[in-house]
Amino acid sequence: MSNSHEPIPLSQAQRPFFVGVDVGGTNIKIGFVDDLGQTFAFTSIPTEEEKGPEDAIERTTTAIRRMLADRQMQMEDIAAVGLGTPGTMDIPAGMILEPPNMPAWRNFPVRDRLSQACGRPVSYANDANAAAYGEYWVGSGREFPSIVLLTLGTGVGGGIIIGDLSIDGENSHGSECGHIIIDYHDTARMCGCGQRGHLEAYGSATALVKRAEEALEAGRPSSLRAALDAGQTLSGLMLARHAEDGDELSLELIMETAFYLGIAGVTLIHTIDPGALILGGAMNFGGHNRDLGRRFLERIREVVRERAFPVPASRVVIDYASLGGDAGYIGVAGIARAAYRKK
Amino acid sequence: MSNSHEPIPLSQAQRPFFVGVDVGGTNIKIGFVDDLGQTFAFTSIPTEEEKGPEDAIERTTTAIRRMLADRQMQMEDIAAVGLGTPGTMDIPAGMILEPPNMPAWRNFPVRDRLSQACGRPVSYANDANAAAYGEYWVGSGREFPSIVLLTLGTGVGGGIIIGDLSIDGENSHGSECGHIIIDYHDTARMCGCGQRGHLEAYGSATALVKRAEEALEAGRPSSLRAALDAGQTLSGLMLARHAEDGDELSLELIMETAFYLGIAGVTLIHTIDPGALILGGAMNFGGHNRDLGRRFLERIREVVRERAFPVPASRVVIDYASLGGDAGYIGVAGIARAAYRKK
Repeated sequence: MSNSHEPIPLSQAQRPFFVGVDVGGTNIKIGFVDDLGQTFAFTSIPTEEEKGPEDAIERTTTAIRRMLADRQMQMEDIAAVGLGTPGTMDIPAGMILEPPNMPAWRNFPVRDRLSQACGRPVSYANDANAAAYGEYWVGSGREFPSIVLLTLGTGVGGGIIIGDLSIDGENSHGSECGHIIIDYHDTARMCGCGQRGHLEAYGSATALVKRAEEALEAGRPSSLRAALDAGQTLSGLMLARHAEDGDELSLELIMETAFYLGIAGVTLIHTIDPGALILGGAMNFGGHNRDLGRRFLERIREVVRERAFPVPASRVVIDYASLGGDAGYIGVAGIARAAYRKK
Repeated sequence: MSNSHEPIPLSQAQRPFFVGVDVGGTNIKIGFVDDLGQTFAFTSIPTEEEKGPEDAIERTTTAIRRMLADRQMQMEDIAAVGLGTPGTMDIPAGMILEPPNMPAWRNFPVRDRLSQACGRPVSYANDANAAAYGEYWVGSGREFPSIVLLTLGTGVGGGIIIGDLSIDGENSHGSECGHIIIDYHDTARMCGCGQRGHLEAYGSATALVKRAEEALEAGRPSSLRAALDAGQTLSGLMLARHAEDGDELSLELIMETAFYLGIAGVTLIHTIDPGALILGGAMNFGGHNRDLGRRFLERIREVVRERAFPVPASRVVIDYASLGGDAGYIGVAGIARAAYRKK
């Protein structure tokens, strides 16, 4: 995921202004976003997870103050702040609970602490729902009244936005689309969460690598074998390269991934019936820029056309996300804006 | 499904008043519903599908006028009318499109024709979403900010209500929870809709009977066999009776149905994370009134507790619907009320 957005000059930004803070396991992205969803300032600082959330919030607030000072702005020029973190979380309480890869952040009142530190109201959201809101607001979903975002990477994340409403759920566990069951059998694949048959156990980069390992063990011929023998490690990127170089197994496994995503897409269409199903995250095989990415997308569309009800199947737009790694901070800024406008 | 609600006297009804019209393949239910969701007048007329929708709307309007006259009321005493029909439909356009069992009603502007006939604004909804709204407003879902309703019968219907919003979808195909995929394999069971692996192909009464037929063909011992030999026809009701009389196969198949519903419940919890998952429709094995119904419900709860994320699994309330066959007309009256109050 890249920071694909070149910030616009402050002189072109439209008030009111918002700050989006997107906390990940490695980096914290901080963007100043205007009323139209345009980024006019951006920075990224290391999370340094082991130092804990108090330290990170202090450094985040310092970074925001520096960005303000650089532009002769005051904290009061910011209407509201949005904060996104990984789950689990209690959104109404503003608490981060048990983020799997951030043990030092457990059970921390992250929303209120950030609000105290910077003196502005803070809206809190799940990072995947924030990314979905970003795509809905100014990304690939901007023309649609509702979208579902699937983020494809090590796992499969999800975000559901319906008419400006982020589907957080009653217990902050809504939109966990990676954990849709696509195979109820006891023989179904094991998900990282410890349950069987979830989309993530089939459609993630981790699952792709696992299926490749199984196929190689089963003796399937593939150029992957020589690469492994040469000491390389299997990865989604490696399979993509081999698929593009003509390796049938790699291509087959990537298209299988598209099939599983299409299956979950059918369930989402028969539940949410969104205007668009958007595919974000790092594992897009080059997206629209490469033939493999275009084939991957076309296979997902094909599965949906074949298996969903004809009317939504013919109308739902299935496409790649367009904001890349910016979707999260732009999205939480947008969620903060929506809360600000409701007042 | 029964009309379980005894209407209250008009003198106890609170204005504004609404009319709910719930069109089914056999009957059209018409209820006068007050601002608190209480029914103060009710009638049911035959749909007489073959006579077409114009005729049915005329008879519906005549019935409403008679109900008004009986109470010395005028059409102007009705704030708004709600209309529910089976799909497929185009809700924003107010069109019923291709209802599977009502060919004479195809492609008919049912909302506007009813509005013209009775001179009141009409809100239009899918019948299953209407039932969900009814349960959300004054039924088993009344204490929750969001619910998912699964209606268990010949098929499996669905309704999703989130904070007063009925999830109709962009193409009026939202909340079709019977068509969630629970098994992606090519070997999965065929659904009535012509696709494989849908919840309805596993969790409906039709599916229950089919699995019983298969088990009997496979030679499983069961008291069902003697009943068949005596000329009886397999049905959900018959399996329930045999299960209660100690037939192991019947009980096993009914508990399998609960398992499949639990699996779909997990997907819905990981997508919507509702406050409550409500089970409506005729196939509830006696509901809370009979041991089998209680065991059926407990098995669904058990599957969800075992397989959904711990926090929502421990908090979601899973229970039977409480409005029976009244949920639809009460629900559309409630949807009409919500539209009326937004003005």
